[in-house]
Amino acid sequence: MSENEIEELRSRFAREAMAIMERRGEEVNRAKLASELNIARTRVETVFPEEADLLEAVTGEWFAPKLAVMDEVMATDLPPRRKMYEFFARRFLLLRDNFKHDPASFKLYVEMGERYFEYAQSYIDLADHYLCELIAQAQAEGHFAGLEINQALSLINQAVLCYIQPYLIAMIDERLTEAKLAALIDALFDGLQARDSDARGNQSISSV
Amino acid sequence: MSENEIEELRSRFAREAMAIMERRGEEVNRAKLASELNIARTRVETVFPEEADLLEAVTGEWFAPKLAVMDEVMATDLPPRRKMYEFFARRFLLLRDNFKHDPASFKLYVEMGERYFEYAQSYIDLADHYLCELIAQAQAEGHFAGLEINQALSLINQAVLCYIQPYLIAMIDERLTEAKLAALIDALFDGLQARDSDARGNQSISSV
Repeated sequence: MSENEIEELRSRFAREAMAIMERRGEEVNRAKLASELNIARTRVETVFPEEADLLEAVTGEWFAPKLAVMDEVMATDLPPRRKMYEFFARRFLLLRDNFKHDPASFKLYVEMGERYFEYAQSYIDLADHYLCELIAQAQAEGHFAGLEINQALSLINQAVLCYIQPYLIAMIDERLTEAKLAALIDALFDGLQARDSDARGNQSISSV
Repeated sequence: MSENEIEELRSRFAREAMAIMERRGEEVNRAKLASELNIARTRVETVFPEEADLLEAVTGEWFAPKLAVMDEVMATDLPPRRKMYEFFARRFLLLRDNFKHDPASFKLYVEMGERYFEYAQSYIDLADHYLCELIAQAQAEGHFAGLEINQALSLINQAVLCYIQPYLIAMIDERLTEAKLAALIDALFDGLQARDSDARGNQSISSV
């Protein structure tokens, strides 16, 4: 098989594996995939030399639509605040649709994501890379004053974590709304900066 | 046995059950508790008439120190911003200590918390009740302008979720710091209010 054919099969087999997982409610390995598709195991192994390659391909298929909406938002020329909102909101709506459409499969993917976190890392890294761009654009307009980009990145990710983290979307779904996400993004744009913290103060009462 | 004696045994048996769970790394029911303590099962059943009563008592013991630090903070006369920071920070430090001291047991309690969420509800409700008080104090000083207390409650809980949610503390522990928590509380005090959202805008690009 040519590299192109293998690439095409990798994507097709990954989607087949996802369909099987969603139907059976459990993880699928190469052996199960071959028997469910009624093809030779060696054929599956040509496409996925290791079990890890199947997992990586499934992760890629699962993330593809989330990356597509991020790409779409990054390509717009919206002002930074609107852009950052859409960057999170569109991904959130997609994740919530996934969850509502099939909660059991969504939870299965969340569990797999916890077990095979390393395969998701490159997607998380790309989302962070995009967010850094958005932060730089916002800083050029005076927001997040005095913060290093990586500090702002971490703080913003933490503040909206329940809108991007699949586990939390499944858990507190009914409390999450676009209006609340917008209020949080506005609060960050208006209030997040490097400062002597009034919240933390000079003295902690921790020693009381 | 008198009601007092039963109350005392309930707390003692719950702590024994926790010690056994932490040692064995798995949940304990009334039968296991009786055999581990080498006492008659009927004695355990006098104290915990239902399995649920044991779970409820364990939940209570687990939450007791977290409630104690919240009570301590509420009793201070710190200004609202400092007070809200300490309200979250002290609980966060306690949870992080629990996690670092014994990650496996911490994760066991997190899993139990997910399965038996109803027993934790009264503690979460109490924390929310306290936070509403803090929000009212902050609003008297002009913060969170125009927001209903319940809106502010939900938004603040979401923004600092990773500092109060045990699952997240275990998962992203190394990214959580008191300085970041303080920066988020400061951003909320300075930026969170009812407003026409610039982030959300009038038109969404969702339809693009």
